[in-house]
Amino acid sequence: MKIIILIFGFSVVFCEEIHYGFVTKYIDMPLDHFSFTTNTTFKLRYLVNDTYFAEDKPIFFYTGNEGDISMFAQNTGFMFELAAKMGALLVFAEHRFYGETLPFGNNSYTSPKYLGYLSAQQALADYVYLINDLQKQYVNKSNSLEKLPVIAFGGSYGGMLAAWLRIRYPYSVIGAIASSAPVWQFHGIIPCENFNKIVTDVVRSLGSEICADTIRKSWNILRNITATDKGKIDVSTTFQLCKNIQTNDDIETLLNWLSEIYVDIVMVNYPYPTSFLVPLPGHPVREFCEGLDSVKYKDGVGLVEAIAKGLQIYTNYTGTTKCNDILQTAGPNLGENGWNFQSCTDMIMPMCSTDTDMFENSAWDFQQFSDDCYKQFSVRPRNEEVPILEFGGTEIETASNIVFSNGLLDPWSSGGVIKNISSQVLSILIPDGAHHVDLRAANPLDTESFKTARQFHEKQINKWLDKFYFKSLPLEAYVSTVNKI
Amino acid sequence: MKIIILIFGFSVVFCEEIHYGFVTKYIDMPLDHFSFTTNTTFKLRYLVNDTYFAEDKPIFFYTGNEGDISMFAQNTGFMFELAAKMGALLVFAEHRFYGETLPFGNNSYTSPKYLGYLSAQQALADYVYLINDLQKQYVNKSNSLEKLPVIAFGGSYGGMLAAWLRIRYPYSVIGAIASSAPVWQFHGIIPCENFNKIVTDVVRSLGSEICADTIRKSWNILRNITATDKGKIDVSTTFQLCKNIQTNDDIETLLNWLSEIYVDIVMVNYPYPTSFLVPLPGHPVREFCEGLDSVKYKDGVGLVEAIAKGLQIYTNYTGTTKCNDILQTAGPNLGENGWNFQSCTDMIMPMCSTDTDMFENSAWDFQQFSDDCYKQFSVRPRNEEVPILEFGGTEIETASNIVFSNGLLDPWSSGGVIKNISSQVLSILIPDGAHHVDLRAANPLDTESFKTARQFHEKQINKWLDKFYFKSLPLEAYVSTVNKI
Repeated sequence: MKIIILIFGFSVVFCEEIHYGFVTKYIDMPLDHFSFTTNTTFKLRYLVNDTYFAEDKPIFFYTGNEGDISMFAQNTGFMFELAAKMGALLVFAEHRFYGETLPFGNNSYTSPKYLGYLSAQQALADYVYLINDLQKQYVNKSNSLEKLPVIAFGGSYGGMLAAWLRIRYPYSVIGAIASSAPVWQFHGIIPCENFNKIVTDVVRSLGSEICADTIRKSWNILRNITATDKGKIDVSTTFQLCKNIQTNDDIETLLNWLSEIYVDIVMVNYPYPTSFLVPLPGHPVREFCEGLDSVKYKDGVGLVEAIAKGLQIYTNYTGTTKCNDILQTAGPNLGENGWNFQSCTDMIMPMCSTDTDMFENSAWDFQQFSDDCYKQFSVRPRNEEVPILEFGGTEIETASNIVFSNGLLDPWSSGGVIKNISSQVLSILIPDGAHHVDLRAANPLDTESFKTARQFHEKQINKWLDKFYFKSLPLEAYVSTVNKI
Repeated sequence: MKIIILIFGFSVVFCEEIHYGFVTKYIDMPLDHFSFTTNTTFKLRYLVNDTYFAEDKPIFFYTGNEGDISMFAQNTGFMFELAAKMGALLVFAEHRFYGETLPFGNNSYTSPKYLGYLSAQQALADYVYLINDLQKQYVNKSNSLEKLPVIAFGGSYGGMLAAWLRIRYPYSVIGAIASSAPVWQFHGIIPCENFNKIVTDVVRSLGSEICADTIRKSWNILRNITATDKGKIDVSTTFQLCKNIQTNDDIETLLNWLSEIYVDIVMVNYPYPTSFLVPLPGHPVREFCEGLDSVKYKDGVGLVEAIAKGLQIYTNYTGTTKCNDILQTAGPNLGENGWNFQSCTDMIMPMCSTDTDMFENSAWDFQQFSDDCYKQFSVRPRNEEVPILEFGGTEIETASNIVFSNGLLDPWSSGGVIKNISSQVLSILIPDGAHHVDLRAANPLDTESFKTARQFHEKQINKWLDKFYFKSLPLEAYVSTVNKI
């Protein structure tokens, strides 16, 4: 793990994290796997590291999610550590319409006639297609195996894709590690307020009661202050915005920006510094609330200053941020616009806030949501049930060889599979874990539950592989394989 | 079974077959289930018969194949007989781009920009969408079940769809009866000559050796005779063609027409008269060969006359055919053109002939096939592996609750699942059965093996239902249900 070959660059080097090396490859991919109205293809990017790869050993395949694949590759050190142990080939596939994989180049996001080909279904078919190609590239003709065993890994939306890849295309991957995958965050399965409740509970318990209460109070105060022109300028100054807010829409954007940052801080509440979404210290929820609580405010203006103080941990941990752009929360590597489109089409996830959380109350209004989608993307969600019709919702008892892992500090656990479905579809909980912490590289500050989750993954993967080799190999080869593993 | 309500008409009443009644319904269906470039919808037709339907009982759902759904409904009497026993609702769904379900009306077949939406994947998603809607229509709010159990049924391509519906969308149907479903008739799975070998074996054993030999000899003779203008006219007259053959292309069309008829006669070699593809007597292979063998020919011209005599059993069993159109083999209800398109896109089935069969030798040439597809439809097959990438080929060991049935007299058994895959994916063979004979209504001429297959289906369906009810119902309701079934 010490020899790092940095083949492609990764721009921000921060916190002295390990940087993993890859060869960048491309595959010609059909634009549409399900209809035949077009024969257009595009270049799908994927990253390969064969440092550890040994004959007949598995492929570890990361099902890329909504962002530049190199960001996910750099934040999924667990796969490298396990590959080193198990002799696996590492492949990270970029999701269509994210990162550099833009089927129509700069036009990709300009119209539904292009962007409409962004969907989870198409992405899954891309991965099946790529895995089939990898089999041809990496199965050594002299080997005893006709196919290499492939394990899917993914976190968050990538975890959903990993699970669905196994569920829908079990001949493509022999198993899946689906970390923090909210496959049940859909219509009618869980109450829409659960997500924000968890965010609030984490801020209350790991930050402070005062911190959560301040945020709860802030929405009305911010609306009142920004009702005047002077107030708009004052708030913009306090939050060091790059551009002063001016319109009612700007106010909504500001409040959304704040909400999203609170969510993000909770999501990535790791016990050590990271630079996943943005550079952050360890325990960012605690740090955020300590900053916020350090301002002893007496009025609304003071309250806004307290929040601005807390926020700095997120917006300016490096000390180099000149001003804040409220149109962006998570750094440029995450494809927020693409995800917003998917939220309007195939990944419709109802969200709401009630008196029980620290956010401004808001109901889930499907019609309003649909209107907003149309305004932004000229598409409307076909049907609130689409994700369930496509992927089955909670009815996954016929699936096999999947581990769903969820950190209970992660708001996305609200839509996660947090109980065993069968002896073959298992759930492991990480009580003190944030968003897909188990996929991250080992760290001296890892808790016991992080380590247990990773051991659990390893054990399950070995079970799946044992079964695969048993079925694939002639007896003598099987025996020698068993002796090696 | 005696009360028949004929709600929609069925044109040809022949052989005094039973005609089943339905209500015709339509559902607005998204044109594209997998991308978001269009929000077009179309009316998908389906037929419903609720004569036997009782509270909490299953839906029997026929996954329509390449033709007018009413034809399949009229030839799937087994579902009616079982529905009467089990209190099931009967639904027959029409496949997009066939029968009356033409998403773009008369333009549907004019360009790949329309016809490109014809695919097995889209059709499966249609069925999931429709089943979801049926659940809302037919689950009685006062009932104890939230969802009704749905069993998929299908024959031939419809059988493939039934199996894939269960494999891909196990939350939509609890099990599938896939009759004569050649899910393995794809690239690299089985030798391309198997299909024609079976056709030949059946003609040899149930017709006669002479009959098969005559056909084997006929190809060269027909080519020789039609090399002259006079020969073209003579052959056209002998076969009573509506339009004399003139060009080389016409000769190819004639030879294809003959080949397809031989295949069709074998496919529907039922022991009693039917009017599935065209009106036919019982044991049509025997009848065909008896006709052919009755002409004691001495030369090529006589051989052609012998074949023409045999053919009449297929082309003019009713005695009302004025002339033969070599562009059509199977009656107007089967969507031959749509199926040809699917053969060029998602259902690429390699076929060839060798010295071991009675057909003219022909190799499987993918490039030539692709060129022909482009000429006919302006599309090329993306990749010969497409059906395997999409549906998994032989790797279906993770599936459950499927019965694959195959008649061994059916050439499509060449691509069928003719062995058990697991304790939950079962195969049943009908040694003396033709194409999906087990889905037909009971007939006094049924053999023991037909009856055994239908009993097997019933037993498996009851197993699936028992499990479903056990998991769905509160204990007291379960007990009462078990007592009833």
